[in-house]
Amino acid sequence: MSSQTVERALNTEVKSWQRLAAEKRNTRHRRYPRMDAHKPPSKETLNVIEFPETCGLLSDREIEITNTGGTWSAVDVTTAFSKRAVIAHQLVEIPLRFVIESLQRAAELDEHLRRTGKVVGPLHGLPISLKDQINIKGLESTIGYISYIGRYAASNSVLADILESCGAVLYVKTNVPQTLMWVETYNHIFGRTLNPYNHSLTSGGSSGGEGALIALKGSPLGVGSDIAGSIRVPAAFNGLYALCPSYGRIPYAGCVNALEGQDSVLSSLGPLCNSLGGIRNFMKSVLSEKPWLKDPLAMKKPWNEEEYRLADHGDGKYLCFAFMWHDEFILPHPPVMRALEQTKQALLSAGHQVIDWKPHKHAEIGETLWAICGAGAAQDFSMATILSGEPVISAMDPALDDLNLLAIDIPEDRPLPPALSAFELWQEQHKMRELRQEYLDYWNASIALTGTGRPVDAIISPCAPFVAPPHGKNNIPPSYTMIWNALNYTTLVCPTGLFVDPALDVKKPPHEFFSDLDEAAYDFYEPAKFAGAPISIQVIGRTSEEEAVTAMGEIVDLALHRKVPPAKL
Amino acid sequence: MSSQTVERALNTEVKSWQRLAAEKRNTRHRRYPRMDAHKPPSKETLNVIEFPETCGLLSDREIEITNTGGTWSAVDVTTAFSKRAVIAHQLVEIPLRFVIESLQRAAELDEHLRRTGKVVGPLHGLPISLKDQINIKGLESTIGYISYIGRYAASNSVLADILESCGAVLYVKTNVPQTLMWVETYNHIFGRTLNPYNHSLTSGGSSGGEGALIALKGSPLGVGSDIAGSIRVPAAFNGLYALCPSYGRIPYAGCVNALEGQDSVLSSLGPLCNSLGGIRNFMKSVLSEKPWLKDPLAMKKPWNEEEYRLADHGDGKYLCFAFMWHDEFILPHPPVMRALEQTKQALLSAGHQVIDWKPHKHAEIGETLWAICGAGAAQDFSMATILSGEPVISAMDPALDDLNLLAIDIPEDRPLPPALSAFELWQEQHKMRELRQEYLDYWNASIALTGTGRPVDAIISPCAPFVAPPHGKNNIPPSYTMIWNALNYTTLVCPTGLFVDPALDVKKPPHEFFSDLDEAAYDFYEPAKFAGAPISIQVIGRTSEEEAVTAMGEIVDLALHRKVPPAKL
Repeated sequence: MSSQTVERALNTEVKSWQRLAAEKRNTRHRRYPRMDAHKPPSKETLNVIEFPETCGLLSDREIEITNTGGTWSAVDVTTAFSKRAVIAHQLVEIPLRFVIESLQRAAELDEHLRRTGKVVGPLHGLPISLKDQINIKGLESTIGYISYIGRYAASNSVLADILESCGAVLYVKTNVPQTLMWVETYNHIFGRTLNPYNHSLTSGGSSGGEGALIALKGSPLGVGSDIAGSIRVPAAFNGLYALCPSYGRIPYAGCVNALEGQDSVLSSLGPLCNSLGGIRNFMKSVLSEKPWLKDPLAMKKPWNEEEYRLADHGDGKYLCFAFMWHDEFILPHPPVMRALEQTKQALLSAGHQVIDWKPHKHAEIGETLWAICGAGAAQDFSMATILSGEPVISAMDPALDDLNLLAIDIPEDRPLPPALSAFELWQEQHKMRELRQEYLDYWNASIALTGTGRPVDAIISPCAPFVAPPHGKNNIPPSYTMIWNALNYTTLVCPTGLFVDPALDVKKPPHEFFSDLDEAAYDFYEPAKFAGAPISIQVIGRTSEEEAVTAMGEIVDLALHRKVPPAKL
Repeated sequence: MSSQTVERALNTEVKSWQRLAAEKRNTRHRRYPRMDAHKPPSKETLNVIEFPETCGLLSDREIEITNTGGTWSAVDVTTAFSKRAVIAHQLVEIPLRFVIESLQRAAELDEHLRRTGKVVGPLHGLPISLKDQINIKGLESTIGYISYIGRYAASNSVLADILESCGAVLYVKTNVPQTLMWVETYNHIFGRTLNPYNHSLTSGGSSGGEGALIALKGSPLGVGSDIAGSIRVPAAFNGLYALCPSYGRIPYAGCVNALEGQDSVLSSLGPLCNSLGGIRNFMKSVLSEKPWLKDPLAMKKPWNEEEYRLADHGDGKYLCFAFMWHDEFILPHPPVMRALEQTKQALLSAGHQVIDWKPHKHAEIGETLWAICGAGAAQDFSMATILSGEPVISAMDPALDDLNLLAIDIPEDRPLPPALSAFELWQEQHKMRELRQEYLDYWNASIALTGTGRPVDAIISPCAPFVAPPHGKNNIPPSYTMIWNALNYTTLVCPTGLFVDPALDVKKPPHEFFSDLDEAAYDFYEPAKFAGAPISIQVIGRTSEEEAVTAMGEIVDLALHRKVPPAKL
């Protein structure tokens, strides 16, 4: 070390992780226009979902744009959604990082259309929000770590490039939990994202920023990621449609991630949206750009219209849906059961077949997934925090929040499964393969039960055993979603259009509990606490069935809402 | 332990691994009809490729059947190939395990055709040989381990089921090296498989039994597996066509494997055959059975005729092939260089474009693959040998062979890379993803060099730096094949129709060696030793390009042989 270097080292103020977080938070806040003069809802107002339209910050046209889409200039649309996003942030704390160039980009798109009479691509002028980890050149992807502050992406992720090729306007990145491996959204830099339907409830996670932002129509369509439920849980808790594709259908290359190099059970990117048409359009558009030519792990499989027309499912005329009422681990709360029952009745009325689905070794599959992801997780989290000194967050209990951070009580490190040797990891991965084979055989065997001449077409299940729970309470393994990641099945979240109604969703007497966690989940259900939360269901297809699952989702949605299928976004 | 159990335990003779192997070998030998009365070639006869037709054991019709295919009854075809397989075994030691029921199965197929006028499927009546590890109900898959003797498969592998659905007759399983992780074929149970073109040379491995059997036309088509070259090396050394598909294109479920649970760089199953038409027909047939409905890891991607017509490659009219003359690790021997040069001239004459391909970080990719596969390999091999006491084979030097086994000098255990923790393995896997991205970007950048408006259509490279080397000498990492497994590219082996000719393939003066191994490879080249060995090349396409690579292989083959594309098998 030269004497000069030593001098520099001694003179450099070593900043604590708390100071780094506080600096970042303050910089961010200074950049947003505040809406203090526009009668923000009081702290006691739990449901803020209508506020963006009533606060007076948006023009009638901006409200119309953000509610309905339609033909507007890219600049108008980007402006409207950006403004509504800023409002959304101040309502539910979705710390946002805006793409400074997005309005210029929108203007260029408008100019291109004016000059050539042609759109750039199928998403021309559509603003799209991205979960924090999806790199946009020049922006940070912190995945909630203090030590990642200042890591500005040198280039776009493959998906960002593809969306821009399709004509999209990437305008904002949204909040996630530290480590990404939580189904709530809180980190030391940006704080906690709340549920717009009920402030006292979580927005879910890890794509919680996307969930809250899209629910408040601060974004027409967003992209999340999911290795255990991180797209579907926030979609379900915020009343959105969302697709979690099988591994590699949507290109992941160039994103920041946790557990990098864990190659067995893969995280998937997928869309969250207020409409199913948006989901379909996103998938078709991304696949039209042949992502496999840009991402070595992307699957070489274009969007298949024949599969979308349900050629493998009797053309969709008489489908057999299997209802999984519970997973033998945690019994769903009454609102979830009500929504399942209503979905069942709707599908029967629409002329489809419905049978029950008995879970097959879900606990064992979940434990194996946990062992695989946990095999190096403690070291992974440690490597990401050790330099900043930031603790690994061990609980989402809001009692541990302290937005001043400097006074925070550092909680114990997060409990994780034991580190494994590579050979031990292989044994878990081998077990998972066998479980996947068993589950596939089990699904195939359902041909004896359906009456359609085919195995079950799709499973309908809860997205979680509850609707959005109070902050800190979503600390139970997301068994209803992670099982399908382990199996690499395609899954879709559909809002049912129902909301928790304490009068209808009364607490049931205790049942024979499957587990201590089941009892804990039972105990914390109090109908009034969940009032107003949206209720969603999950549609589960087989591996790489994105087209068929989207189409079956449209059938379920149509049955539930007795409406025409959603129009193209 | 009850006293009875103790008594039983004391009375049980604990068999040494040597005795177990010898017993197995003897049982096997007793089952084959010997050809001792039919003038077997002397030990000094190195090339036995013509012997099956001259020995008098086959009728003229059987020779015609095994040489040309054509329309024969399934029983006739199965009988002819079975007989020729028994001859082949006695020429080059391809220990075989026959499917007892295969003739009965063939008779049922004949009867079905007679009764209905219809074939069962696209492979009706075709005998197919399978590498040891591909489970057929009731047969052992030992993968060369003493301790696996007696493990009779309880059910078919998915591929065996699919081939039977297509009408194939599974009639024989073939030899492999212990652990499967060698590019020669020797194990303590079944001994060593020789090269039919030259007894003193290796048949390659790990699908060495398939390579030698098909070269001797004891099988019209066989299935091997490949994680570093195990299909392609024996195909190249025995003058066969072979396809190593990308991960999951051919279903692997239900096979026995080494390194089970290593989920990052996957082994692929693929066909070896005397014709390219057979390769294509195999792929189309297997994919027509929708393997993704039976194997959870099989890719949902049917055979695509548009890709086979080279829609993504300018309809195949003016292709750009990039020639990789060496990999900057080991310079190929003169015969390999001659075959590459001849292929280049043939493609130019056929009107295609040819450029050079500079390898990109092949050493780093190879080392990373080695680290990934090695992360738990020592424990994996140990678990498979510890119960029998059999040593892990440490070298393929024939000086270590002792077919009596009881007198064998147990060699030192095989040197392997260090065991890793799961977290360390993840770092290697993460590095591999980055290398795969770099290589893809590198390939895409070749658009600037081709003059076709597309990146390079395919790479042409050696299959190995040498043709089949003497036994024990194929102990250099198979860098020319393993690189493409690491990248998950589709690769095809084409025989060039050329054979080593000591007059043409003279030894060159020493070059500036890339490495010690390069020097070692240089040193052991003596033209006379390799006389008569077939020379092959490799055609490399991108991920999941099985259709396009098959079609481009046909173009290369046509150019080389100036013949019409091979007819449908």
